[in-house]
Amino acid sequence: MGKVSVQGLPERKAGPVTYRTISAGPVMMLYLTIPPHTSLPPHTHENFQMGYVLSGSVSLTIGEERATFQPGMAYTIPEQVSHDLQTQEETVEMLDIYYPPKSDRL
Amino acid sequence: MGKVSVQGLPERKAGPVTYRTISAGPVMMLYLTIPPHTSLPPHTHENFQMGYVLSGSVSLTIGEERATFQPGMAYTIPEQVSHDLQTQEETVEMLDIYYPPKSDRL
Repeated sequence: MGKVSVQGLPERKAGPVTYRTISAGPVMMLYLTIPPHTSLPPHTHENFQMGYVLSGSVSLTIGEERATFQPGMAYTIPEQVSHDLQTQEETVEMLDIYYPPKSDRL
Repeated sequence: MGKVSVQGLPERKAGPVTYRTISAGPVMMLYLTIPPHTSLPPHTHENFQMGYVLSGSVSLTIGEERATFQPGMAYTIPEQVSHDLQTQEETVEMLDIYYPPKSDRL
């Protein structure tokens, strides 16, 4: 059965980020909880990535452009495009989606 | 730039469902608004599907199992598995994800 209650999923850590795995394939969907004042440096990967902000405010630089995302906003990051992330005063909760599934989150 | 503000996206209709296209590929993400008392009959498709409920309460039958989904709950529907949907008293808002992108929503 394909029913997933996010609060019941085990928590895992990737640096300062806590993630819960909603789906690991064919498309990966993670539920991220990111503490205030977190900065993830620029990085790239071969996976297409997209996501949706559920709570809090997060700044992303995607390629050359920086923007701040609030709840109800989504992002797409093409394969191999550099991106970084910063949170401010609030904890951020968001959905993060990868295709293909990101091997270091399996 | 990969920034998407869902409220600013054009609305499209598929029967009683209003959808906004956050991404049309490589993975499709739609933002759905489904009115109260909506019933979508069982159907199947070749696409893997998953989603996340943002507001309201929705019942899905996936294969042989029926369950009700609240905000913070997610579903996964394997390729070719029959599924239906019913809403109750509330409007439901949810994210719906397809791989590959669903050709009749392009």
